[in-house]
Amino acid sequence: MASLGHVTPQSMHFAEPLRLRSGAQLADYTLVYETYGTLNADKSNAVLVCHALNASHHVAGTYEGVPKSEGWWDNLVGPGKPLDTDRFFVIGINNPGSCFGSTGPMHANPATGKPYGADFPVVTVEDWVQAQALLLDRLGIRTLAAVMGGSLGGMQALSWSLQFPERVRHCIAIATAPNLSAQNIAFNEVARRAIVTDPDFHGGHYYEHGVVPKRGLRVARMIGHITYLSDDAMAEKFGRSLRAAELAYSTQEIEFQIESYLRYQGDKFSEYFDANTYLLITRALDYFDPARDHGGDLSRAMARARAKFLVVSFTTDWRFSPARSREIVKALLDNRRDVSYAEIDAPHGHDAFLLEDARYHAVVRAYYERIAREIEEGRDDE
Amino acid sequence: MASLGHVTPQSMHFAEPLRLRSGAQLADYTLVYETYGTLNADKSNAVLVCHALNASHHVAGTYEGVPKSEGWWDNLVGPGKPLDTDRFFVIGINNPGSCFGSTGPMHANPATGKPYGADFPVVTVEDWVQAQALLLDRLGIRTLAAVMGGSLGGMQALSWSLQFPERVRHCIAIATAPNLSAQNIAFNEVARRAIVTDPDFHGGHYYEHGVVPKRGLRVARMIGHITYLSDDAMAEKFGRSLRAAELAYSTQEIEFQIESYLRYQGDKFSEYFDANTYLLITRALDYFDPARDHGGDLSRAMARARAKFLVVSFTTDWRFSPARSREIVKALLDNRRDVSYAEIDAPHGHDAFLLEDARYHAVVRAYYERIAREIEEGRDDE
Repeated sequence: MASLGHVTPQSMHFAEPLRLRSGAQLADYTLVYETYGTLNADKSNAVLVCHALNASHHVAGTYEGVPKSEGWWDNLVGPGKPLDTDRFFVIGINNPGSCFGSTGPMHANPATGKPYGADFPVVTVEDWVQAQALLLDRLGIRTLAAVMGGSLGGMQALSWSLQFPERVRHCIAIATAPNLSAQNIAFNEVARRAIVTDPDFHGGHYYEHGVVPKRGLRVARMIGHITYLSDDAMAEKFGRSLRAAELAYSTQEIEFQIESYLRYQGDKFSEYFDANTYLLITRALDYFDPARDHGGDLSRAMARARAKFLVVSFTTDWRFSPARSREIVKALLDNRRDVSYAEIDAPHGHDAFLLEDARYHAVVRAYYERIAREIEEGRDDE
Repeated sequence: MASLGHVTPQSMHFAEPLRLRSGAQLADYTLVYETYGTLNADKSNAVLVCHALNASHHVAGTYEGVPKSEGWWDNLVGPGKPLDTDRFFVIGINNPGSCFGSTGPMHANPATGKPYGADFPVVTVEDWVQAQALLLDRLGIRTLAAVMGGSLGGMQALSWSLQFPERVRHCIAIATAPNLSAQNIAFNEVARRAIVTDPDFHGGHYYEHGVVPKRGLRVARMIGHITYLSDDAMAEKFGRSLRAAELAYSTQEIEFQIESYLRYQGDKFSEYFDANTYLLITRALDYFDPARDHGGDLSRAMARARAKFLVVSFTTDWRFSPARSREIVKALLDNRRDVSYAEIDAPHGHDAFLLEDARYHAVVRAYYERIAREIEEGRDDE
C-alpha cells in the first residue's frame, strides 16, 4: 500500500506557561508536530494520534533523504490505510518532556540558561493532553473526529475524553489500561533505578558532564522489551537457540540468541533516547489513574466522557492485558456510553498494537469508515 | 509446630578435582552442609534437599545466638513437619560457586592465590549433582529415599534422577521446569547485564578493589522479585498504594509502596549476596536442559529415570508455570514412570514453594508418609 511519502515536521512556540498537575509550570515551550491529509472546510475530519513511550510526532510517512524513516504507525496511517489520510486530517504531536524535538530535559531551562536535566518538571498524561489541546486551538481545530493512541497513547486518548468531553467525537484506545498495576509500576521502577544509579547519570545533569547513562538506559530498555513481547512470541522467535554451535560456558559472553537480541535493542536505544525523558515518561505512566479522584471508581470517572469509544486489546498482551481493557469497557457501559470492543487473538504481546495484523487493522478500518460516514451525514444535514 | 532447634553446619574438604561439564575442573574444594535427624541402620531414610538461587545448605532449624536464623524451608522440614526429621535423615548441601560457605568465587584460586572472581569455572546443575553425590559417598549414603527441591532445586532433583537413576528412590520436583524459556533467560540476562556493567564490577575482580557492584545487584534482585511474585499477589499486597498521603510528583523519590518494597529487597540482597555467584547461578539455570542431548525430546531424556516422582506446581507461578511442570509429567508418563502431580491453586506466584500453604504441605506430607511406609515395608522384608 502507498505510503504518505515525504512529510515535514513543524514546530509551534508557546510563550504562555503550561500549568502542570504538579503545581509547577513549564515556562515557555515549543511543540513539534506533523500533519497529514487535508483539513476539510468545516474542520470536522481532524484525528489526533497520541504517541507512547519511545515514539513521537512522526506517526507516518518518511523524511526525505533519510532511509528507514517510516513513522511509527506508518502501517496504519496513510492514503487508503485504516486511518485514511485521503479522508482524515491527521495530527501527531511530540509531548513536552520527550526527546524528539518538543521542549524537554535536554533543552535550556530559561531560569538558569543550562539544560533542565532532572529539573524538568514532572509531566502527566493530563498535562500532555492540555498541551495538545492548546496546539489544536492554534490550528483552529475545536472538535476532533477522533483521538487515538496505543499503550500510553491510549491513556492520552482516554484522558482527552475526560478533560475535553465536548471536543472528542470518538476515542480509540488500543492496548491500554485505566492505570498501571503494581507489577507495571515495579518494572518501571527497576528501569528507573538502573538509570538513576548509573554513575554517568550525575543526578540527572549528565549533559553538563558530557556523558550519557548508557548502562542504565540499556538495562531499562532490555526490561521494557521483555514486557512488550509475549512469552510465546519470544519462544517462537528465539526459543533456546544458541548463537554458536557449541556452548561457550561463559557467564558474560552471549550464548543464546535472545541475549543477543536484547543487548542489541538496549545498545540501539541508549544511542538515541534521553535518560531524563525515560524517567519522566515512565512516571507519567505510573501517575495516570483517572479513577483516583473518584475514590478508585472508574465508572464514576468515566461518567464525564461524551465520546463514542473503540477499545482494542490483544490476547497475549501481558503488559496491558485484555482484562484491563475490559475494565474500561465496563466503566463505559456502566455509563451507557456507545462502546465497541475488539479482543484480537494475536501472538505478539503488547507490541501487537504496532504491527500489521489483518483482523486488528480491519477493526480500525471499519471504525474509521463509520466515523467518515458520520462526518458525511453531518455535512449533509447542514 | 516445633522447630528443629539449633543446628550446626559442617564442612567437608575434597582434595580430588571436580571435573565439570565445561571441561574445566575445580581443583580442590570444600562443601558446607547440614544434616537433621538420624540416619537409620540400613541408611534407607536419607533425603537430600537441594537449594535454589539465593538459598543454602541451611534448610531448617536456627543458629544458636542468631535471631531470625530459620532455615529457608523451616516451615516444611522439622520434627512432625511434612518432611519429618523424626523419621528422615535430611541433608542440605551448599553448592560450589555459591556464596554461603562452599568454595566459590570469593575464595582463593589455588593457581593464583587471589580470589577466583570471574575466573571461577562455570558450574552446571549436573556439576552440582556430581558434587552432592561425592559428599553422600563420604557419608556412606548410597541410596536416597528422596531428593527434593523447588525451582532451581527442583532441576537438581530432576538431574539426580537422570545422572544417578539407581541412587534415587523418589524425586520431588516443585515449582520447576525442564529448562528455561526464552523469557526466563531474558530476565536472567538483564540481571547479569546490570551487574556486569556496574563500574564496581571490575570484570569480576571487585574483591581486589575493595568494592562490590551493589548497584547491579540491587537491580538484579528487583527484577528477580518481580518474577517471583504473581501479578495478583502484588496487586493484593501493594496495589497502587502510595507511601505518602499526597503525590510528590518526583521521578526519583518513592511514591508507591511497591517501589519501597523493591528498593528494600534490592538493598538487603546487595549487602549479602555475591555478584559473581549471581552470574554463575543464573547461568546454571540457563544451561539446564536435559532434553538437549536427546534432540530436544524430554521423553527420551527422562527414559533413564528409575525413581518415582512427585511433581508440584502453583497456578499463579508465571516464572515456572504449571504448563512447564506438565511437560515433565508428560515425559515421565511417556516412559510409564510412577508420577504424582499436584497443581496447587495458590495466589503467591513462584514464591509459593517457600510458603506455608495447607494444601501444598498436605500433598508433600502425604507423599513422605508413603515413602516412610515403603521404608518400613522394605525393612520388614529383610
